[in-house]
Amino acid sequence: MNLNSFDHWRTEVLAQVDQGLDQCLPKADQIPTTLHRAMHYAVNSPGKRIRSLITCASGDLFGANIADTLYSAVAIELIHTYSLIHDDLPCMDNDELRRGKPTVHVAFDEATAMLVGDALQPLAFNVLVNQETRLDYETRLKQVGVLSESAGSLGMVGGQAIDLSQIGMNMTRKELELMHSKKTGALFFASAELGALCGKTYAESFEGPLRAYARQIGFGFQVVDDILDASSPTEVLGKSAGKDLRDNKPTYVTLFGLNRAREMASELAKNIKDTLALLPREGGHLSDIAKLVFDRVY
Amino acid sequence: MNLNSFDHWRTEVLAQVDQGLDQCLPKADQIPTTLHRAMHYAVNSPGKRIRSLITCASGDLFGANIADTLYSAVAIELIHTYSLIHDDLPCMDNDELRRGKPTVHVAFDEATAMLVGDALQPLAFNVLVNQETRLDYETRLKQVGVLSESAGSLGMVGGQAIDLSQIGMNMTRKELELMHSKKTGALFFASAELGALCGKTYAESFEGPLRAYARQIGFGFQVVDDILDASSPTEVLGKSAGKDLRDNKPTYVTLFGLNRAREMASELAKNIKDTLALLPREGGHLSDIAKLVFDRVY
Repeated sequence: MNLNSFDHWRTEVLAQVDQGLDQCLPKADQIPTTLHRAMHYAVNSPGKRIRSLITCASGDLFGANIADTLYSAVAIELIHTYSLIHDDLPCMDNDELRRGKPTVHVAFDEATAMLVGDALQPLAFNVLVNQETRLDYETRLKQVGVLSESAGSLGMVGGQAIDLSQIGMNMTRKELELMHSKKTGALFFASAELGALCGKTYAESFEGPLRAYARQIGFGFQVVDDILDASSPTEVLGKSAGKDLRDNKPTYVTLFGLNRAREMASELAKNIKDTLALLPREGGHLSDIAKLVFDRVY
Repeated sequence: MNLNSFDHWRTEVLAQVDQGLDQCLPKADQIPTTLHRAMHYAVNSPGKRIRSLITCASGDLFGANIADTLYSAVAIELIHTYSLIHDDLPCMDNDELRRGKPTVHVAFDEATAMLVGDALQPLAFNVLVNQETRLDYETRLKQVGVLSESAGSLGMVGGQAIDLSQIGMNMTRKELELMHSKKTGALFFASAELGALCGKTYAESFEGPLRAYARQIGFGFQVVDDILDASSPTEVLGKSAGKDLRDNKPTYVTLFGLNRAREMASELAKNIKDTLALLPREGGHLSDIAKLVFDRVY
Protein backbone atom coordinates (compact mmCIF):
# COMPACT_ATOMS: atom_id res chain seq x y z
CA MET A 1 0.00 0.00 0.00
CA ASN A 2 1.69 3.24 -1.04
CA LEU A 3 1.21 6.61 0.63
CA ASN A 4 -0.58 7.92 -2.39
CA SER A 5 -3.46 5.50 -1.98
CA PHE A 6 -3.57 6.37 1.73
CA ASP A 7 -3.80 10.08 0.91
CA HIS A 8 -6.67 9.41 -1.43
CA TRP A 9 -8.50 7.24 1.11
CA ARG A 10 -7.89 9.77 3.86
CA THR A 11 -9.32 12.64 1.81
CA GLU A 12 -12.42 10.55 1.16
CA VAL A 13 -12.83 9.67 4.86
CA LEU A 14 -12.42 13.26 6.01
CA ALA A 15 -14.94 14.55 3.47
CA GLN A 16 -17.51 11.93 4.48
CA VAL A 17 -16.97 12.43 8.21
CA ASP A 18 -17.35 16.21 7.91
CA GLN A 19 -20.56 15.72 6.00
CA GLY A 20 -21.76 13.04 8.45
CA LEU A 21 -21.10 15.31 11.42
CA ASP A 22 -23.02 18.14 9.82
CA GLN A 23 -25.99 15.90 9.08
CA CYS A 24 -26.12 14.41 12.57
CA LEU A 25 -26.38 17.80 14.29
CA PRO A 26 -29.72 19.56 14.55
CA LYS A 27 -29.87 22.48 12.07
CA ALA A 28 -28.35 25.73 13.33
CA ASP A 29 -31.69 27.54 13.03
CA GLN A 30 -33.52 25.07 15.28
CA ILE A 31 -34.47 26.25 18.80
CA PRO A 32 -32.38 26.84 20.89
CA THR A 33 -30.49 28.52 18.05
CA THR A 34 -27.48 29.80 19.98
CA LEU A 35 -26.78 26.33 21.33
CA HIS A 36 -27.10 24.76 17.89
CA ARG A 37 -24.96 27.42 16.22
CA ALA A 38 -22.30 26.81 18.86
CA MET A 39 -22.51 23.05 18.30
CA HIS A 40 -21.88 23.55 14.57
CA TYR A 41 -19.06 25.99 15.32
CA ALA A 42 -17.36 23.44 17.56
CA VAL A 43 -17.81 20.48 15.27
CA ASN A 44 -16.80 22.29 12.08
CA SER A 45 -13.33 23.21 13.33
CA PRO A 46 -10.74 21.80 10.92
CA GLY A 47 -9.33 19.02 13.12
CA LYS A 48 -6.94 16.26 12.14
CA ARG A 49 -9.69 13.67 12.70
CA ILE A 50 -7.11 11.06 13.72
CA ARG A 51 -9.83 9.17 15.58
CA SER A 52 -12.09 8.99 12.53
CA LEU A 53 -9.20 7.72 10.46
CA ILE A 54 -8.51 5.02 13.05
CA THR A 55 -12.18 3.97 13.07
CA CYS A 56 -12.41 3.71 9.31
CA ALA A 57 -8.98 2.08 8.95
CA SER A 58 -9.83 -0.48 11.61
CA GLY A 59 -13.14 -1.26 9.91
CA ASP A 60 -11.36 -1.56 6.58
CA LEU A 61 -9.11 -4.29 8.03
CA PHE A 62 -12.15 -6.42 8.77
CA GLY A 63 -14.16 -5.85 5.62
CA ALA A 64 -16.15 -2.71 6.42
CA ASN A 65 -16.13 0.15 3.94
CA ILE A 66 -16.25 3.86 4.77
CA ALA A 67 -20.06 4.01 4.66
CA ASP A 68 -20.27 1.13 7.18
CA THR A 69 -17.97 2.87 9.66
CA LEU A 70 -19.00 6.48 9.05
CA TYR A 71 -21.48 6.80 11.93
CA SER A 72 -19.05 5.17 14.32
CA ALA A 73 -16.45 7.75 13.33
CA VAL A 74 -18.97 10.55 13.78
CA ALA A 75 -19.89 9.31 17.27
CA ILE A 76 -16.22 9.24 18.26
CA GLU A 77 -15.62 12.77 16.90
CA LEU A 78 -18.63 14.07 18.85
CA ILE A 79 -17.19 12.69 22.11
CA HIS A 80 -13.73 14.01 21.25
CA THR A 81 -15.07 17.46 20.37
CA TYR A 82 -17.10 17.72 23.59
CA SER A 83 -14.01 16.78 25.61
CA LEU A 84 -11.93 19.50 23.95
CA ILE A 85 -14.59 22.14 24.64
CA HIS A 86 -14.79 21.26 28.33
CA ASP A 87 -11.02 20.92 28.55
CA ASP A 88 -10.57 24.45 27.20
CA LEU A 89 -12.89 26.05 29.79
CA PRO A 90 -11.41 28.50 32.33
CA CYS A 91 -11.90 26.05 35.23
CA MET A 92 -9.84 23.47 33.31
CA ASP A 93 -6.98 24.41 30.93
CA ASN A 94 -8.29 27.91 30.18
CA ASP A 95 -7.33 27.88 26.50
CA GLU A 96 -8.48 30.61 24.14
CA LEU A 97 -7.32 29.07 20.90
CA ARG A 98 -8.07 25.67 19.41
CA ARG A 99 -7.39 24.50 15.87
CA GLY A 100 -6.50 28.11 15.03
CA LYS A 101 -9.90 29.47 16.07
CA PRO A 102 -11.22 31.04 19.29
CA THR A 103 -12.41 28.30 21.65
CA VAL A 104 -16.18 27.88 22.13
CA HIS A 105 -16.36 29.74 25.45
CA VAL A 106 -14.49 32.67 23.85
CA ALA A 107 -16.59 32.72 20.66
CA PHE A 108 -19.81 32.28 22.70
CA ASP A 109 -19.72 32.15 26.52
CA GLU A 110 -18.82 29.70 29.28
CA ALA A 111 -22.34 28.44 29.95
CA THR A 112 -22.96 27.82 26.25
CA ALA A 113 -19.63 26.00 25.93
CA MET A 114 -20.53 23.74 28.81
CA LEU A 115 -23.96 22.99 27.37
CA VAL A 116 -22.50 22.34 23.91
CA GLY A 117 -20.31 19.66 25.44
CA ASP A 118 -23.20 18.29 27.48
CA ALA A 119 -25.31 18.01 24.32
CA LEU A 120 -22.65 16.54 22.02
CA GLN A 121 -22.11 13.64 24.38
CA PRO A 122 -25.61 12.08 24.28
CA LEU A 123 -25.77 12.85 20.55
CA ALA A 124 -22.82 10.49 20.07
CA PHE A 125 -24.74 7.62 21.66
CA ASN A 126 -27.86 8.55 19.73
CA VAL A 127 -25.93 8.39 16.46
CA LEU A 128 -24.79 4.83 17.27
CA VAL A 129 -28.36 3.76 18.05
CA ASN A 130 -29.90 5.28 14.92
CA GLN A 131 -27.06 4.80 12.41
CA GLU A 132 -28.19 3.96 8.89
CA THR A 133 -26.10 0.82 8.54
CA ARG A 134 -26.74 -2.89 8.49
CA LEU A 135 -25.32 -3.39 11.99
CA ASP A 136 -27.58 -5.57 14.16
CA TYR A 137 -28.93 -4.54 17.55
CA GLU A 138 -26.37 -6.55 19.48
CA THR A 139 -23.43 -4.90 17.71
CA ARG A 140 -24.83 -1.39 18.08
CA LEU A 141 -25.35 -2.05 21.76
CA LYS A 142 -21.77 -3.32 22.05
CA GLN A 143 -20.60 -0.08 20.43
CA VAL A 144 -22.56 1.99 22.95
CA GLY A 145 -21.00 -0.12 25.71
CA VAL A 146 -17.42 0.38 24.46
CA LEU A 147 -17.84 4.11 23.83
CA SER A 148 -19.58 4.81 27.14
CA GLU A 149 -16.89 2.95 29.05
CA SER A 150 -14.06 4.72 27.21
CA ALA A 151 -15.62 8.12 27.80
CA GLY A 152 -16.22 7.62 31.54
CA SER A 153 -14.38 7.91 34.83
CA LEU A 154 -12.26 4.81 34.18
CA GLY A 155 -11.40 6.14 30.70
CA MET A 156 -11.09 9.60 29.19
CA VAL A 157 -12.64 11.66 31.99
CA GLY A 158 -10.62 9.70 34.54
CA GLY A 159 -7.47 10.63 32.61
CA GLN A 160 -8.42 14.28 32.69
CA ALA A 161 -9.00 14.09 36.43
CA ILE A 162 -5.53 12.59 36.92
CA ASP A 163 -4.09 15.30 34.66
CA LEU A 164 -5.63 18.04 36.83
CA SER A 165 -4.45 16.46 40.06
CA GLN A 166 -0.86 16.29 38.80
CA ILE A 167 -0.24 19.96 38.12
CA GLY A 168 3.12 20.88 39.60
CA MET A 169 3.80 17.27 40.59
CA ASN A 170 6.60 14.94 39.64
CA MET A 171 5.52 11.75 37.87
CA THR A 172 7.28 8.56 36.88
CA ARG A 173 7.02 7.45 33.27
CA LYS A 174 4.65 4.71 34.43
CA GLU A 175 2.35 7.21 36.12
CA LEU A 176 2.43 9.53 33.12
CA GLU A 177 1.54 6.64 30.85
CA LEU A 178 -1.30 5.47 33.09
CA MET A 179 -2.72 8.97 32.74
CA HIS A 180 -2.33 9.03 28.96
CA SER A 181 -3.69 5.51 28.52
CA LYS A 182 -6.91 6.85 30.04
CA LYS A 183 -6.89 10.43 28.77
CA THR A 184 -6.05 9.68 25.14
CA GLY A 185 -5.67 5.90 24.82
CA ALA A 186 -9.20 4.99 25.92
CA LEU A 187 -10.87 6.94 23.13
CA PHE A 188 -8.28 5.74 20.60
CA PHE A 189 -9.20 2.20 21.60
CA ALA A 190 -12.90 2.96 21.24
CA SER A 191 -12.14 4.39 17.79
CA ALA A 192 -10.42 1.19 16.69
CA GLU A 193 -12.92 -1.14 18.35
CA LEU A 194 -16.05 0.60 17.05
CA GLY A 195 -14.66 0.46 13.52
CA ALA A 196 -13.66 -3.19 13.87
CA LEU A 197 -17.13 -4.10 15.14
CA CYS A 198 -18.52 -2.85 11.81
CA GLY A 199 -16.56 -5.52 9.94
CA LYS A 200 -17.82 -9.03 9.36
CA THR A 201 -14.44 -10.69 9.78
CA TYR A 202 -13.59 -9.14 13.15
CA ALA A 203 -12.85 -11.66 15.88
CA GLU A 204 -12.16 -11.13 19.58
CA SER A 205 -8.59 -12.35 19.16
CA PHE A 206 -7.78 -9.05 17.47
CA GLU A 207 -8.96 -6.98 20.45
CA GLY A 208 -5.60 -7.31 22.19
CA PRO A 209 -3.55 -5.96 19.26
CA LEU A 210 -6.09 -3.15 18.69
CA ARG A 211 -5.86 -2.22 22.37
CA ALA A 212 -2.06 -2.22 22.21
CA TYR A 213 -2.12 -0.13 19.03
CA ALA A 214 -4.46 2.41 20.65
CA ARG A 215 -2.27 2.60 23.73
CA GLN A 216 0.94 3.07 21.76
CA ILE A 217 -0.52 5.56 19.34
CA GLY A 218 -1.98 7.43 22.32
CA PHE A 219 1.46 7.67 23.91
CA GLY A 220 2.95 8.61 20.55
CA PHE A 221 0.37 11.29 20.02
CA GLN A 222 1.10 12.75 23.47
CA VAL A 223 4.85 12.66 23.31
CA VAL A 224 4.76 14.37 19.90
CA ASP A 225 2.24 16.87 21.27
CA ASP A 226 4.51 17.61 24.22
CA ILE A 227 7.54 17.99 21.94
CA LEU A 228 5.65 20.34 19.63
CA ASP A 229 4.26 22.39 22.51
CA ALA A 230 7.81 22.95 23.74
CA SER A 231 9.43 23.60 20.38
CA SER A 232 6.91 25.15 17.93
CA PRO A 233 5.45 28.65 17.67
CA THR A 234 1.70 29.29 18.23
CA GLU A 235 1.11 30.09 14.53
CA VAL A 236 2.20 26.60 13.54
CA LEU A 237 0.36 24.80 16.35
CA GLY A 238 -2.99 26.56 15.98
CA LYS A 239 -3.11 26.62 19.78
CA SER A 240 -1.13 28.44 22.46
CA ALA A 241 2.48 27.19 22.46
CA GLY A 242 4.68 26.65 25.51
CA LYS A 243 1.56 26.41 27.66
CA ASP A 244 2.43 23.14 29.41
CA LEU A 245 5.52 24.64 31.00
CA ARG A 246 3.73 27.84 32.03
CA ASP A 247 0.89 25.79 33.49
CA ASN A 248 3.38 23.62 35.36
CA LYS A 249 2.00 20.46 33.76
CA PRO A 250 3.95 17.24 33.86
CA THR A 251 4.65 16.17 30.25
CA TYR A 252 7.19 13.93 28.53
CA VAL A 253 9.27 17.08 27.93
CA THR A 254 8.96 18.76 31.34
CA LEU A 255 9.64 15.43 33.11
CA PHE A 256 12.35 13.92 30.93
CA GLY A 257 13.65 16.75 28.74
CA LEU A 258 13.33 17.36 25.00
CA ASN A 259 16.03 14.91 23.92
CA ARG A 260 14.78 11.98 25.98
CA ALA A 261 11.22 12.71 24.81
CA ARG A 262 12.43 12.51 21.20
CA GLU A 263 14.10 9.16 21.94
CA MET A 264 10.90 7.88 23.51
CA ALA A 265 8.96 8.89 20.39
CA SER A 266 11.39 6.87 18.26
CA GLU A 267 11.06 3.85 20.55
CA LEU A 268 7.28 4.03 20.35
CA ALA A 269 7.34 4.31 16.56
CA LYS A 270 9.43 1.12 16.53
CA ASN A 271 7.23 -0.78 19.02
CA ILE A 272 4.05 0.03 17.18
CA LYS A 273 5.39 -1.90 14.17
CA ASP A 274 5.45 -5.11 16.22
CA THR A 275 1.83 -4.55 17.17
CA LEU A 276 0.78 -3.87 13.58
CA ALA A 277 2.31 -7.19 12.54
CA LEU A 278 -0.36 -8.95 14.63
CA LEU A 279 -3.17 -7.45 12.57
CA PRO A 280 -4.44 -8.40 9.08
CA ARG A 281 -2.51 -6.73 6.22
CA GLU A 282 0.06 -5.53 8.80
CA GLY A 283 -2.49 -3.00 10.02
CA GLY A 284 -3.30 -1.56 6.58
CA HIS A 285 -4.12 2.13 6.94
CA LEU A 286 -3.60 1.88 10.72
CA SER A 287 0.08 1.68 9.83
CA ASP A 288 -0.17 4.83 7.67
CA ILE A 289 -1.93 6.61 10.53
CA ALA A 290 0.90 5.69 12.89
CA LYS A 291 3.34 7.31 10.46
CA LEU A 292 1.10 10.37 10.33
CA VAL A 293 1.06 10.69 14.12
CA PHE A 294 4.79 10.31 14.54
CA ASP A 295 5.70 12.57 11.60
CA ARG A 296 3.19 15.39 12.12
CA VAL A 297 4.38 18.96 12.40
CA TYR A 298 1.26 20.49 13.95
CA MET B 1 -54.75 1.46 45.86
CA ASN B 2 -54.41 3.29 49.16
CA LEU B 3 -51.64 5.68 50.06
CA ASN B 4 -50.29 3.24 52.56
CA SER B 5 -49.41 0.67 49.90
CA PHE B 6 -47.85 3.47 47.84
CA ASP B 7 -45.71 4.53 50.80
CA HIS B 8 -44.54 0.98 51.23
CA TRP B 9 -43.76 0.56 47.53
CA ARG B 10 -42.00 3.92 47.43
CA THR B 11 -39.76 3.07 50.37
CA GLU B 12 -38.82 -0.16 48.63
CA VAL B 13 -38.04 1.62 45.33
CA LEU B 14 -35.92 4.29 47.01
CA ALA B 15 -33.91 1.73 48.96
CA GLN B 16 -33.23 -0.34 45.84
CA VAL B 17 -32.36 2.68 43.68
CA ASP B 18 -29.94 4.01 46.29
CA GLN B 19 -28.29 0.63 46.44
CA GLY B 20 -28.30 0.30 42.64
CA LEU B 21 -26.67 3.71 42.22
CA ASP B 22 -23.97 2.83 44.70
CA GLN B 23 -23.23 -0.47 42.95
CA CYS B 24 -23.08 1.08 39.48
CA LEU B 25 -20.43 3.63 40.45
CA PRO B 26 -16.76 2.67 40.53
CA LYS B 27 -15.61 2.30 44.15
CA ALA B 28 -14.50 5.54 45.82
CA ASP B 29 -10.96 4.20 46.33
CA GLN B 30 -10.43 3.47 42.64
CA ILE B 31 -8.09 5.77 40.69
CA PRO B 32 -8.78 8.65 40.16
CA THR B 33 -9.97 8.68 43.76
CA THR B 34 -11.01 12.33 44.05
CA LEU B 35 -13.22 12.01 41.00
CA HIS B 36 -14.81 8.83 42.30
CA ARG B 37 -15.30 10.23 45.79
CA ALA B 38 -16.99 13.26 44.25
CA MET B 39 -19.21 11.01 42.11
CA HIS B 40 -20.37 9.16 45.23
CA TYR B 41 -20.89 12.46 47.07
CA ALA B 42 -23.10 13.75 44.24
CA VAL B 43 -25.12 10.59 43.79
CA ASN B 44 -25.66 9.93 47.50
CA SER B 45 -27.41 13.23 48.16
CA PRO B 46 -30.86 12.49 49.60
CA GLY B 47 -33.01 13.51 46.62
CA LYS B 48 -36.72 12.98 46.14
CA ARG B 49 -35.99 10.50 43.30
CA ILE B 50 -39.24 11.49 41.56
CA ARG B 51 -37.81 10.23 38.26
CA SER B 52 -36.97 6.80 39.68
CA LEU B 53 -40.48 6.56 41.08
CA ILE B 54 -41.93 7.41 37.66
CA THR B 55 -39.74 4.79 35.98
CA CYS B 56 -40.71 2.03 38.39
CA ALA B 57 -44.38 3.06 38.49
CA SER B 58 -44.53 3.13 34.72
CA GLY B 59 -42.93 -0.31 34.50
CA ASP B 60 -45.36 -1.61 37.13
CA LEU B 61 -48.30 -0.59 34.90
CA PHE B 62 -47.05 -2.89 32.16
CA GLY B 63 -46.01 -5.87 34.24
CA ALA B 64 -42.42 -5.06 35.18
CA ASN B 65 -41.40 -5.36 38.82
CA ILE B 66 -38.90 -3.16 40.65
CA ALA B 67 -35.93 -5.41 39.80
CA ASP B 68 -36.81 -5.21 36.09
CA THR B 69 -36.88 -1.40 36.11
CA LEU B 70 -34.13 -0.73 38.63
CA TYR B 71 -31.29 -0.15 36.16
CA SER B 72 -33.46 2.11 34.05
CA ALA B 73 -34.19 4.19 37.14
CA VAL B 74 -30.49 4.29 38.00
CA ALA B 75 -29.61 5.49 34.48
CA ILE B 76 -32.17 8.27 34.72
CA GLU B 77 -30.90 9.37 38.14
CA LEU B 78 -27.33 9.49 36.83
CA ILE B 79 -28.38 11.84 34.02
CA HIS B 80 -30.46 13.93 36.40
CA THR B 81 -27.64 14.17 38.93
CA TYR B 82 -25.08 15.22 36.31
CA SER B 83 -27.46 17.93 35.09
CA LEU B 84 -27.86 19.33 38.61
CA ILE B 85 -24.11 19.44 39.15
CA HIS B 86 -23.48 21.36 35.92
CA ASP B 87 -26.51 23.57 36.55
CA ASP B 88 -25.11 24.58 39.93
CA LEU B 89 -21.70 25.66 38.55
CA PRO B 90 -20.71 29.35 38.76
CA CYS B 91 -21.02 29.84 34.99
CA MET B 92 -24.63 28.58 35.19
CA ASP B 93 -26.87 29.14 38.24
CA ASN B 94 -24.02 29.50 40.73
CA ASP B 95 -25.74 27.64 43.55
CA GLU B 96 -23.88 26.67 46.70
CA LEU B 97 -26.52 24.49 48.28
CA ARG B 98 -28.36 21.47 46.89
CA ARG B 99 -30.52 19.01 48.79
CA GLY B 100 -29.29 20.67 51.99
CA LYS B 101 -25.61 19.98 51.24
CA PRO B 102 -22.83 22.05 49.65
CA THR B 103 -22.92 21.62 45.87
CA VAL B 104 -20.17 19.52 44.27
CA HIS B 105 -18.04 22.47 43.12
CA VAL B 106 -18.17 23.89 46.67
CA ALA B 107 -17.38 20.57 48.38
CA PHE B 108 -14.64 19.81 45.81
CA ASP B 109 -13.77 22.32 43.06
CA GLU B 110 -15.17 23.51 39.73
CA ALA B 111 -13.06 21.30 37.51
CA THR B 112 -13.93 18.21 39.53
CA ALA B 113 -17.63 19.12 39.45
CA MET B 114 -17.52 19.44 35.69
CA LEU B 115 -15.73 16.10 35.31
CA VAL B 116 -18.14 14.38 37.69
CA GLY B 117 -21.00 15.45 35.43
CA ASP B 118 -19.06 14.44 32.34
CA ALA B 119 -18.46 10.97 33.81
CA LEU B 120 -21.96 10.35 35.16
CA GLN B 121 -23.47 10.88 31.73
CA PRO B 122 -21.75 8.01 29.85
CA LEU B 123 -22.17 5.83 32.94
CA ALA B 124 -25.93 6.16 32.51
CA PHE B 125 -25.74 4.72 28.99
CA ASN B 126 -23.33 2.04 30.13
CA VAL B 127 -25.77 0.95 32.83
CA LEU B 128 -28.52 0.51 30.23
CA VAL B 129 -26.22 -1.59 28.03
CA ASN B 130 -25.00 -3.85 30.82
CA GLN B 131 -28.10 -4.05 33.02
CA GLU B 132 -28.66 -7.44 34.65
CA THR B 133 -32.21 -7.89 33.38
CA ARG B 134 -33.94 -10.04 30.78
CA LEU B 135 -34.39 -7.11 28.37
CA ASP B 136 -33.39 -8.03 24.83
CA TYR B 137 -30.83 -6.11 22.75
CA GLU B 138 -33.46 -4.26 20.76
CA THR B 139 -35.20 -2.93 23.86
CA ARG B 140 -31.95 -1.90 25.54
CA LEU B 141 -30.98 -0.07 22.38
CA LYS B 142 -34.38 1.65 22.30
CA GLN B 143 -33.79 2.77 25.87
CA VAL B 144 -30.40 4.25 24.95
CA GLY B 145 -32.11 6.01 22.04
CA VAL B 146 -34.86 7.52 24.20
CA LEU B 147 -32.51 8.60 26.98
CA SER B 148 -29.89 10.09 24.65
CA GLU B 149 -32.54 12.07 22.79
CA SER B 150 -34.13 13.35 26.00
CA ALA B 151 -30.78 14.40 27.41
CA GLY B 152 -29.63 16.28 24.30
CA SER B 153 -29.97 19.67 22.66
CA LEU B 154 -33.58 19.04 21.65
CA GLY B 155 -34.38 17.88 25.19
CA MET B 156 -32.98 18.68 28.62
CA VAL B 157 -29.83 20.55 27.60
CA GLY B 158 -31.85 22.51 25.06
CA GLY B 159 -34.22 23.54 27.86
CA GLN B 160 -31.31 24.73 29.95
CA ALA B 161 -29.98 26.77 27.04
CA ILE B 162 -33.39 28.45 26.63
CA ASP B 163 -33.48 29.07 30.39
CA LEU B 164 -30.12 30.86 30.25
CA SER B 165 -31.10 32.96 27.27
CA GLN B 166 -34.28 34.15 28.99
CA ILE B 167 -32.75 35.78 32.07
CA GLY B 168 -34.39 39.18 32.52
CA MET B 169 -36.80 38.55 29.62
CA ASN B 170 -40.54 38.48 29.54
CA MET B 171 -42.08 35.20 28.39
CA THR B 172 -45.57 34.11 27.46
CA ARG B 173 -46.99 31.05 29.21
CA LYS B 174 -46.51 29.15 25.95
CA GLU B 175 -42.81 30.06 25.77
CA LEU B 176 -42.30 29.22 29.43
CA GLU B 177 -43.93 25.84 28.91
CA LEU B 178 -41.87 25.11 25.80
CA MET B 179 -38.79 25.67 27.95
CA HIS B 180 -40.04 23.44 30.76
CA SER B 181 -41.22 20.71 28.39
CA LYS B 182 -37.58 20.42 27.35
CA LYS B 183 -35.79 21.26 30.59
CA THR B 184 -37.84 19.01 32.88
CA GLY B 185 -40.45 17.29 30.70
CA ALA B 186 -38.01 15.50 28.39
CA LEU B 187 -36.32 13.57 31.20
CA PHE B 188 -39.67 12.87 32.89
CA PHE B 189 -40.80 11.35 29.61
CA ALA B 190 -37.63 9.28 29.37
CA SER B 191 -38.27 8.11 32.95
CA ALA B 192 -41.77 6.91 32.07
CA GLU B 193 -40.81 5.43 28.69
CA LEU B 194 -37.73 3.55 29.93
CA GLY B 195 -39.81 1.98 32.68
CA ALA B 196 -42.64 1.10 30.31
CA LEU B 197 -40.20 -0.53 27.88
CA CYS B 198 -39.28 -2.98 30.68
CA GLY B 199 -42.85 -4.29 30.77
CA LYS B 200 -44.13 -7.06 28.51
CA THR B 201 -47.59 -5.54 28.03
CA TYR B 202 -46.41 -2.10 26.91
CA ALA B 203 -47.76 -1.02 23.53
CA GLU B 204 -46.99 2.06 21.47
CA SER B 205 -50.54 3.32 21.91
CA PHE B 206 -49.63 4.22 25.50
CA GLU B 207 -46.74 6.45 24.45
CA GLY B 208 -49.05 9.43 23.89
CA PRO B 209 -50.56 9.33 27.39
CA LEU B 210 -47.11 8.77 28.97
CA ARG B 211 -45.78 11.76 27.06
CA ALA B 212 -48.72 13.89 28.19
CA TYR B 213 -48.25 12.73 31.79
CA ALA B 214 -44.55 13.61 31.68
CA ARG B 215 -45.30 17.02 30.24
CA GLN B 216 -47.98 17.82 32.80
CA ILE B 217 -46.03 16.54 35.75
CA GLY B 218 -43.03 18.51 34.48
CA PHE B 219 -45.08 21.70 34.45
CA GLY B 220 -46.57 20.81 37.83
CA PHE B 221 -43.13 20.19 39.27
CA GLN B 222 -41.91 23.56 38.00
CA VAL B 223 -44.88 25.63 39.07
CA VAL B 224 -44.70 24.13 42.56
CA ASP B 225 -40.93 24.72 42.58
CA ASP B 226 -41.45 28.34 41.60
CA ILE B 227 -44.14 28.80 44.27
CA LEU B 228 -41.91 27.24 46.94
CA ASP B 229 -38.89 29.30 45.88
CA ALA B 230 -40.94 32.46 46.33
CA SER B 231 -42.67 31.48 49.56
CA SER B 232 -40.47 29.11 51.63
CA PRO B 233 -37.36 29.70 53.73
CA THR B 234 -34.00 28.18 52.76
CA GLU B 235 -34.05 25.76 55.74
CA VAL B 236 -37.21 24.12 54.42
CA LEU B 237 -36.12 24.05 50.76
CA GLY B 238 -32.62 22.66 51.29
CA LYS B 239 -31.48 25.12 48.63
CA SER B 240 -31.23 28.92 48.48
CA ALA B 241 -34.72 30.45 48.62
CA GLY B 242 -35.91 33.51 46.66
CA LYS B 243 -33.11 32.97 44.17
CA ASP B 244 -35.24 33.10 41.02
CA LEU B 245 -36.30 36.68 41.72
CA ARG B 246 -32.76 37.79 42.63
CA ASP B 247 -31.42 36.11 39.48
CA ASN B 248 -34.10 37.82 37.40
CA LYS B 249 -35.33 34.46 36.08
CA PRO B 250 -38.71 34.19 34.41
CA THR B 251 -40.81 31.74 36.44
CA TYR B 252 -44.51 31.03 36.86
CA VAL B 253 -44.41 33.34 39.90
CA THR B 254 -42.30 36.20 38.53
CA LEU B 255 -44.30 36.22 35.27
CA PHE B 256 -47.84 35.67 36.53
CA GLY B 257 -47.75 36.33 40.30
CA LEU B 258 -48.11 33.94 43.23
CA ASN B 259 -51.91 33.69 43.12
CA ARG B 260 -52.16 32.93 39.41
CA ALA B 261 -49.31 30.41 39.75
CA ARG B 262 -51.30 28.64 42.47
CA GLU B 263 -54.36 28.55 40.21
CA MET B 264 -52.26 27.10 37.40
CA ALA B 265 -51.00 24.36 39.74
CA SER B 266 -54.61 23.45 40.57
CA GLU B 267 -55.55 23.36 36.88
CA LEU B 268 -52.61 21.08 36.12
CA ALA B 269 -53.49 18.76 38.99
CA LYS B 270 -56.98 18.46 37.47
CA ASN B 271 -55.76 17.94 33.88
CA ILE B 272 -53.34 15.20 34.84
CA LYS B 273 -56.31 13.12 36.06
CA ASP B 274 -57.72 13.03 32.51
CA THR B 275 -54.37 11.78 31.24
CA LEU B 276 -54.11 9.10 33.92
CA ALA B 277 -57.54 7.78 32.88
CA LEU B 278 -56.00 6.77 29.53
CA LEU B 279 -53.49 4.45 31.22
CA PRO B 280 -54.01 0.96 32.72
CA ARG B 281 -55.25 0.99 36.35
CA GLU B 282 -55.81 4.76 35.99
CA GLY B 283 -52.07 5.23 36.12
CA GLY B 284 -51.49 3.14 39.29
CA HIS B 285 -48.58 4.62 41.23
CA LEU B 286 -48.14 7.30 38.54
CA SER B 287 -51.28 8.79 40.03
CA ASP B 288 -49.80 8.68 43.55
CA ILE B 289 -46.65 10.37 42.25
CA ALA B 290 -48.73 13.17 40.73
CA LYS B 291 -50.27 13.76 44.17
CA LEU B 292 -46.79 13.77 45.68
CA VAL B 293 -45.57 16.39 43.22
CA PHE B 294 -48.53 18.71 43.68
CA ASP B 295 -48.64 18.35 47.47
CA ARG B 296 -44.93 18.52 48.28
CA VAL B 297 -43.68 21.05 50.79
CA TYR B 298 -40.00 20.98 49.91
